[in-house]
Amino acid sequence: MAYLRLSHDDRRAQLLELGKRHFLARPYESISMDEVAEEARVSKGLLYHYFPTKREFYMACLRSAIDELLAVTQPVADAAPDVTLRGAIDGYLRYVEEHATAYQAVLRGSIGSDPEVSAIADGFREAIYRRIAAALPEPPGPLLGLAIKGWIGFVEAVSLAWAPTRHPPRAVLVDLLAGELAHVLQASGGAPLTPPS
Amino acid sequence: MAYLRLSHDDRRAQLLELGKRHFLARPYESISMDEVAEEARVSKGLLYHYFPTKREFYMACLRSAIDELLAVTQPVADAAPDVTLRGAIDGYLRYVEEHATAYQAVLRGSIGSDPEVSAIADGFREAIYRRIAAALPEPPGPLLGLAIKGWIGFVEAVSLAWAPTRHPPRAVLVDLLAGELAHVLQASGGAPLTPPS
Repeated sequence: MAYLRLSHDDRRAQLLELGKRHFLARPYESISMDEVAEEARVSKGLLYHYFPTKREFYMACLRSAIDELLAVTQPVADAAPDVTLRGAIDGYLRYVEEHATAYQAVLRGSIGSDPEVSAIADGFREAIYRRIAAALPEPPGPLLGLAIKGWIGFVEAVSLAWAPTRHPPRAVLVDLLAGELAHVLQASGGAPLTPPS
Repeated sequence: MAYLRLSHDDRRAQLLELGKRHFLARPYESISMDEVAEEARVSKGLLYHYFPTKREFYMACLRSAIDELLAVTQPVADAAPDVTLRGAIDGYLRYVEEHATAYQAVLRGSIGSDPEVSAIADGFREAIYRRIAAALPEPPGPLLGLAIKGWIGFVEAVSLAWAPTRHPPRAVLVDLLAGELAHVLQASGGAPLTPPS
């Protein structure tokens, strides 16, 4: 077996990429650490050095996918709120388009109502919630808070249903999702999003 | 152990009620069939006669909870669409209010991304989808179809976030959720809901 010399971080990144290709596209039970090690051309011992158990490897892959989703929906500095929102939604849907199976795995979990898997997805929802709340002129009250969480659920349900066919095209969905947030904010007594100060 | 003589259906219903009290309120792993049998004052053999495995018992409890949710959201015959919609949402939120833990268990699953658990929750979503679609003057196209699924996700996310505190009161949420469906239909090119013909 030919070892490629990589730094610790590069090796970890390589293994994560490979792990995501497997874990986020196939049932958890069907994946063997042996197979992943072989494909990465590393020893099984080295794979376990980075990820001590299959479960930890899986969780690291989920977290990495969530980090990607957070990165592609990152607000653009100094942009108008509407531009930021539409850019974030577009980035999100682009991710769904390119990684449909991964997206479904992250949101639905693939080793179940495992509390740790749910916590990863909930952490993502909370991060999105905080970004929206931060763009409001004042902290959301109870009703507005629920409405924002509802909108996040709206986006997920639309995206999950859209992922298999990706029809209608992304731009149509960006309009729908951005329009809904504006309406939800207005209907629950919130002010429109404000430009970053 | 004193056996109470019950008909087959009554016995099954009794065991399901008891099962729901346990399975929908506590972690799956923490529940023993022995304990349920004892509480129901039946032999373990009789419990297994109705539900051959703990898993089958659990699934039957989930399905029973979904049937209840479908029943309390049943459209009222001959009512105006708005009255039907608000009545259904009110019934749904009332169920969430009274069975908060059960609701969360059904929607999130408590033995995981078990495909069978997901299928039960998805079956419920599809039933609600079909009811809404049936109340439209024509079958929804792709965008409208996604928007309706999005609204169902909106309702779930709002309800899950609302369940722990039940604040603000139900009536406020009925307004929010009914208003969102009207807006979603309009924004994605759908006609308003029509009275049952």
